[in-house]
Amino acid sequence: MNIQDYIRDVQDFPTEGILFKDITPLLNNSEARKLMLEKLYNKCKNLKIDKVVGIESRGFFFGMALADQLNAGFVPLRKKGKLPYSTVSQKYGLEYGEDELEMHTDAIQQGDNVLLHDDVLATGGTAKAACDLIQSKGGKIVQCNFIMKLDFLKGEEKLVPHHIEAVLNY
Amino acid sequence: MNIQDYIRDVQDFPTEGILFKDITPLLNNSEARKLMLEKLYNKCKNLKIDKVVGIESRGFFFGMALADQLNAGFVPLRKKGKLPYSTVSQKYGLEYGEDELEMHTDAIQQGDNVLLHDDVLATGGTAKAACDLIQSKGGKIVQCNFIMKLDFLKGEEKLVPHHIEAVLNY
Repeated sequence: MNIQDYIRDVQDFPTEGILFKDITPLLNNSEARKLMLEKLYNKCKNLKIDKVVGIESRGFFFGMALADQLNAGFVPLRKKGKLPYSTVSQKYGLEYGEDELEMHTDAIQQGDNVLLHDDVLATGGTAKAACDLIQSKGGKIVQCNFIMKLDFLKGEEKLVPHHIEAVLNY
Repeated sequence: MNIQDYIRDVQDFPTEGILFKDITPLLNNSEARKLMLEKLYNKCKNLKIDKVVGIESRGFFFGMALADQLNAGFVPLRKKGKLPYSTVSQKYGLEYGEDELEMHTDAIQQGDNVLLHDDVLATGGTAKAACDLIQSKGGKIVQCNFIMKLDFLKGEEKLVPHHIEAVLNY
């Protein structure tokens, strides 16, 4: 089984000129999905993790599965206005305009060892905002963990000095 | 451990007069989260399920975990414009105005046995739209599975004749 066969290229989504990496075929196949989870888990299984943080909403799929494997708490980061309780928020730049990410104020405790997970590391803007939120509450970012990273967008540079792992590289 | 202690009431979210049931404390505690997953799984473990369908985005958390336990495919239903590939869509009424749910056209095959999962059954409008989408592609809805249902909103009536299971009732 070649796991890359379950990542579908969709041209011009969400906007013209973007080649989108669609993970829904991976989610839809139980065997491929479990293989991906195993590969993600192998990258963090020897770490002591208190909280796995997943970014809305494609970071929720494997983020919670990793939290289950690591016996860690799971923390969802969401777009502005979606979390019901008191929040801290962080703005970040998009290609056009900006967006804002929120985290519940009680989600991370001082000194928590945190694994950040998302599906794709692209320009790194969202992941950087997530790291800032986690650190603002005293969390230590032990690893930034992705299904794939798009090397030509140089997101890794924005996440220095955090440790980055990805199963696939494009 | 009383699992209800991990569901937080938030008054006036998302709008005034609504008492919101916040599951993030449940997600944040590994032990409570695993107990909830066990209770959800116990309600469907004897069913033959080909696909678990989770509704954006709180239905993604335990939806994918159930798919893992059941060795089933996982299908995310999303709000309009979020899924990259070709979709079928279904509008549904909200208290004010309407919203629209989408599913990838290749997500469900004719004859698939489907478990629908979401966090809360409230008025049932979203779940009914999800059932309509699944059935439009020939899926058989074997169970509609929720963390909790709010009985006073009578969502069950909207989902007749589907079989409904929920761990908690309010």
